Amino acid sequence: MRILIINPNSDPKMTEAIRKSAVGFAGERFEVVCEPTPGAPRFIETYEDDVAAAPGMLQLVKDFEQEVDAIVVACHGDPNIDAIKETTTKPVVGIGEASMKIATMLGHGFSVVTTAKRSIPPKEVQARKYHLQNLLVSVRAPDSDASDCENEQLFLDLARLAVEQDLAEVIVLGCAGLTGMDKLIQEKLGVPTLDGVVCALIIAEGLVRYGVSTSKVLGFNPEW
Amino acid sequence: MRILIINPNSDPKMTEAIRKSAVGFAGERFEVVCEPTPGAPRFIETYEDDVAAAPGMLQLVKDFEQEVDAIVVACHGDPNIDAIKETTTKPVVGIGEASMKIATMLGHGFSVVTTAKRSIPPKEVQARKYHLQNLLVSVRAPDSDASDCENEQLFLDLARLAVEQDLAEVIVLGCAGLTGMDKLIQEKLGVPTLDGVVCALIIAEGLVRYGVSTSKVLGFNPEW
Amino acid sequence: MRILIINPNSDPKMTEAIRKSAVGFAGERFEVVCEPTPGAPRFIETYEDDVAAAPGMLQLVKDFEQEVDAIVVACHGDPNIDAIKETTTKPVVGIGEASMKIATMLGHGFSVVTTAKRSIPPKEVQARKYHLQNLLVSVRAPDSDASDCENEQLFLDLARLAVEQDLAEVIVLGCAGLTGMDKLIQEKLGVPTLDGVVCALIIAEGLVRYGVSTSKVLGFNPEW
Amino acid sequence: MRILIINPNSDPKMTEAIRKSAVGFAGERFEVVCEPTPGAPRFIETYEDDVAAAPGMLQLVKDFEQEVDAIVVACHGDPNIDAIKETTTKPVVGIGEASMKIATMLGHGFSVVTTAKRSIPPKEVQARKYHLQNLLVSVRAPDSDASDCENEQLFLDLARLAVEQDLAEVIVLGCAGLTGMDKLIQEKLGVPTLDGVVCALIIAEGLVRYGVSTSKVLGFNPEW
Amino acid sequence: MRILIINPNSDPKMTEAIRKSAVGFAGERFEVVCEPTPGAPRFIETYEDDVAAAPGMLQLVKDFEQEVDAIVVACHGDPNIDAIKETTTKPVVGIGEASMKIATMLGHGFSVVTTAKRSIPPKEVQARKYHLQNLLVSVRAPDSDASDCENEQLFLDLARLAVEQDLAEVIVLGCAGLTGMDKLIQEKLGVPTLDGVVCALIIAEGLVRYGVSTSKVLGFNPEW
Amino acid sequence: MRILIINPNSDPKMTEAIRKSAVGFAGERFEVVCEPTPGAPRFIETYEDDVAAAPGMLQLVKDFEQEVDAIVVACHGDPNIDAIKETTTKPVVGIGEASMKIATMLGHGFSVVTTAKRSIPPKEVQARKYHLQNLLVSVRAPDSDASDCENEQLFLDLARLAVEQDLAEVIVLGCAGLTGMDKLIQEKLGVPTLDGVVCALIIAEGLVRYGVSTSKVLGFNPEW
Repeated sequence: MRILIINPNSDPKMTEAIRKSAVGFAGERFEVVCEPTPGAPRFIETYEDDVAAAPGMLQLVKDFEQEVDAIVVACHGDPNIDAIKETTTKPVVGIGEASMKIATMLGHGFSVVTTAKRSIPPKEVQARKYHLQNLLVSVRAPDSDASDCENEQLFLDLARLAVEQDLAEVIVLGCAGLTGMDKLIQEKLGVPTLDGVVCALIIAEGLVRYGVSTSKVLGFNPEW
Repeated sequence: MRILIINPNSDPKMTEAIRKSAVGFAGERFEVVCEPTPGAPRFIETYEDDVAAAPGMLQLVKDFEQEVDAIVVACHGDPNIDAIKETTTKPVVGIGEASMKIATMLGHGFSVVTTAKRSIPPKEVQARKYHLQNLLVSVRAPDSDASDCENEQLFLDLARLAVEQDLAEVIVLGCAGLTGMDKLIQEKLGVPTLDGVVCALIIAEGLVRYGVSTSKVLGFNPEW
Repeated sequence: MRILIINPNSDPKMTEAIRKSAVGFAGERFEVVCEPTPGAPRFIETYEDDVAAAPGMLQLVKDFEQEVDAIVVACHGDPNIDAIKETTTKPVVGIGEASMKIATMLGHGFSVVTTAKRSIPPKEVQARKYHLQNLLVSVRAPDSDASDCENEQLFLDLARLAVEQDLAEVIVLGCAGLTGMDKLIQEKLGVPTLDGVVCALIIAEGLVRYGVSTSKVLGFNPEW
Repeated sequence: MRILIINPNSDPKMTEAIRKSAVGFAGERFEVVCEPTPGAPRFIETYEDDVAAAPGMLQLVKDFEQEVDAIVVACHGDPNIDAIKETTTKPVVGIGEASMKIATMLGHGFSVVTTAKRSIPPKEVQARKYHLQNLLVSVRAPDSDASDCENEQLFLDLARLAVEQDLAEVIVLGCAGLTGMDKLIQEKLGVPTLDGVVCALIIAEGLVRYGVSTSKVLGFNPEW
Repeated sequence: MRILIINPNSDPKMTEAIRKSAVGFAGERFEVVCEPTPGAPRFIETYEDDVAAAPGMLQLVKDFEQEVDAIVVACHGDPNIDAIKETTTKPVVGIGEASMKIATMLGHGFSVVTTAKRSIPPKEVQARKYHLQNLLVSVRAPDSDASDCENEQLFLDLARLAVEQDLAEVIVLGCAGLTGMDKLIQEKLGVPTLDGVVCALIIAEGLVRYGVSTSKVLGFNPEW
Repeated sequence: MRILIINPNSDPKMTEAIRKSAVGFAGERFEVVCEPTPGAPRFIETYEDDVAAAPGMLQLVKDFEQEVDAIVVACHGDPNIDAIKETTTKPVVGIGEASMKIATMLGHGFSVVTTAKRSIPPKEVQARKYHLQNLLVSVRAPDSDASDCENEQLFLDLARLAVEQDLAEVIVLGCAGLTGMDKLIQEKLGVPTLDGVVCALIIAEGLVRYGVSTSKVLGFNPEW
């Protein structure tokens, strides 16, 4: 089995971090192809970034879909995921949807820890898209932008506030750039902490083995 | 006052029909610039069409924003509207959002009449995005695709079913290509019928006169 | 075009303030008739005030409907608006509904700033009536009643708290008596701020020009 | 104990029917005072009827509140009930709210059987006001107005359709004029059937015995 | 009339307290049979406690149903109530559901005061089961477990915070063990305060007098 | 890796069918222990069946938890799952929750095909518990009970109706007894069809590999 992971941005460092997490989970069971998106911004922060990443993401799908069994979109906002589900017959999983839905199976409420305060309203919109607003107890972000994701203590402190003040029972890392911080938070706080990359691979691997994919009977069928 | 209407597809005929409706509403009060989207598909039907229209739409915004006072996106699915709201300081209004929200001020429940059965699930997703699911009594579409929008009787019959069977009190035309059919349905059925192009212009004209636009204090501010 | 603005209370000073805001927006495009409600309380604060204003409001509709093109109800709680929509064939717009729905087109979340803490629960009920509870991030009111609406600094401070602490992206003035304070808040805080009187006029003017009004096919038809 | 039942309309026949049902339930435990509303319409069907009944209803409250222990509003639309809760310190119960909330304790879903098709949208609005939209499986009404409530077979047939087609597990009589038809439907169809008059008396009697009433700490306190 | 009150735990002291509250409300109107649950835990705090109480609770139903007219489940989490509704033809009322639904008739928002912080998420789940999440303004619990319910001042302070900070208009006692504290809080804070035992008896007594019970037409019929 | 699958009923034939599906999915990757529940009813159809299965289910957890890595509850109603999540530190997955949540990642709306009409209301309650009511387009069940699950054509026909009339894009098998029918329906109708047993194993296997389990920081911690 081979799974394509699309990093919707073009940052080689983040691509490498995602690949590392993915390979760690994949082990010997499947192969991972992890690609940055050609022509995409260095970091996906804005709605325009989502849109700017689309052509490159769709190009990656076309380039790789014959040789892979499933596709993971590795940006927590799940940009352009409906278009990708529509254009390919292979299973497609977004790290935002996968991580937030798995979170709901592990605790009563979850909190998303993310990198910038400006992402809080869009993250709440995304949670409502997935009908999770009653279970998302908070979105926690630093006061000033921390998109470099390097300050582990900062995100650990945000997760602690989510648990202690918002009664979060599960922490979801709200940015692919935070990949790898899950185990640190889980160990320090004793709270299940979810990296979306791993969560999406769980679903993607399972869908491939099961032999099911996006429905083509109506709304995701481009030929209908 | 001058308002840019972006037709997210590249069809000259539909662009002309939209322009005609818009000019009819604008009268002497404001000028309309109605542009098809360069590089966009001939008709916006799929999620991939939405994405494919984005670069051209954003280019139109950049080309015209200095010389217009507001921007209307004239596809009922409101494609790429968050990105456009984010990139410009001018007011931006989508015909889907405007028509469905105005519908809720005119009756208890509304129905969207659209051109293809495959659009029903995405239209319901869109209504939920705007928190209108309790007020959207139905989406009515022909069994086979009617994207050319030429068969007036077909859409009139769908609207009649919406009123009689679904208890719709307002009809919303769910495709910019149906522009101009509002008055026919309204007269034949005696039910208020909304063309999104006009609805969006109502809001856009008003916002310009009022001097308010998209908030830049947080989630729509690309520089935050 | 001529639009009747019903001030549901009987206060001449507030009627004058509303008229001033309305005339400022109307310019040369339409004429405004702004009337206090005969027999109504001096200020609409309670549910009983709503009810006490009804006979006078309906009388105003009867007296003026032949000579006006639309009717605006200028109290943010939208009192008796369903009855008015039902009794006249002219378009009817409430300043509460218009301002809160327009707010949702300008930002992710909005806050209502109002005059008395006791109004917070009813305002939340009203937002739920319009299905806006997920978008109303807070209702901000002073600890002690400030129905005279004279302390601009007080309301400016409430709006600032809404932006900074509640992440409001849009401010809605929750009382017709606050009319005129929109521009002050908008300038000081850089956040779009909506006066319901103007918002309702935007919709009302548009509906008149468009030639649509309240649906009479079912629930708002008194003869059905 | 003495409970005032306000019939919001002025029809002596319906007042008598309500009184009869109420006395049947009250037995020796409490006394019932059942009053038609002076100045109200003969039948409450429209939003304007609601408003027209208000002054007489509030007058009845003032006239009787010293000599009664609780107040029931006996129109299924619960007209003006917030104003009444606010103006008196005695418990106030509406037959619509009481019957629909008790219905949710007796089955998974309930249907409201009412007298006119035009009432369907307002009834759905009312159910949403009480957050019951997921439990209200249908509102069933005859095609032509049957406000005289005399055709028992008609309403029995509607209830049967609700059970068989809509999977209603409980029937709620959606009009005070249907009072007394509960036992007929319950016996013929074997489905619990609720007359709002009795339901409201259950709550009202209980609140009086318990010694609790409408909260005056905030939103229902006219002096706040 | 005779009503069986099942205390789902096996604590004789709490059983006695519940009986005392119940008898105080029942007066001469009906007889109360209040039973602890054989084989149940001493206190119902966890999901496993719910499950462990089930066999004994169902046994009590079988032992007593011939000689009683209704059954009340006296644990605020309403454990196993659907199974009990299903197995008996007698009316069944849970103290959680009854108290929270009656609370919504007395004020705009209510707060549940309970004994342990760990109960907050399950209590919110329960409120959502009853579609009350928009009306539940908070769940207040002490930082450390207070299941013995002996510290009246502690719960009084929690209720005060609910009123002052969360704008609760009604207080619901979230544990049968708090029975009897309702009048203290109501007097000290002037806020209606509901003991679920009394609330459930209000409904149960009423249903018996009315002659309605759980629907057996579909989902609660074990023979269907 | 070894996963315990608890069949909450005591039917050896259904246990065998579940085991067969599970082993087919597990392949060489993990071992499956599939156990019927001692003391449980032959088939889980009612709320009382849920409760009757609890002691045996919890006993199985105690007997096996040391030697397995995760636990799957193989009844589509997810009976007693919160108690099991609470009592063990191993990951616990219900086939109902897993299948319905995975369904939402494969299409816009899904339909549950189940064995008895009486299960429709409880299934809708379950979907609301998981906040999926907007995505569950229908529950389809035969008019007369078909709990033996032997009539493949019957369930195929129900699935076809769900796709054609309800616009379901995904089919979820609403009973563990239907295990194995997924591929038949998927091939005949071309619609992704989900067997909950496989779906739960996807999640369970993934959680084990990832090293996360039910949160013990608050509501699922029996010692809190």
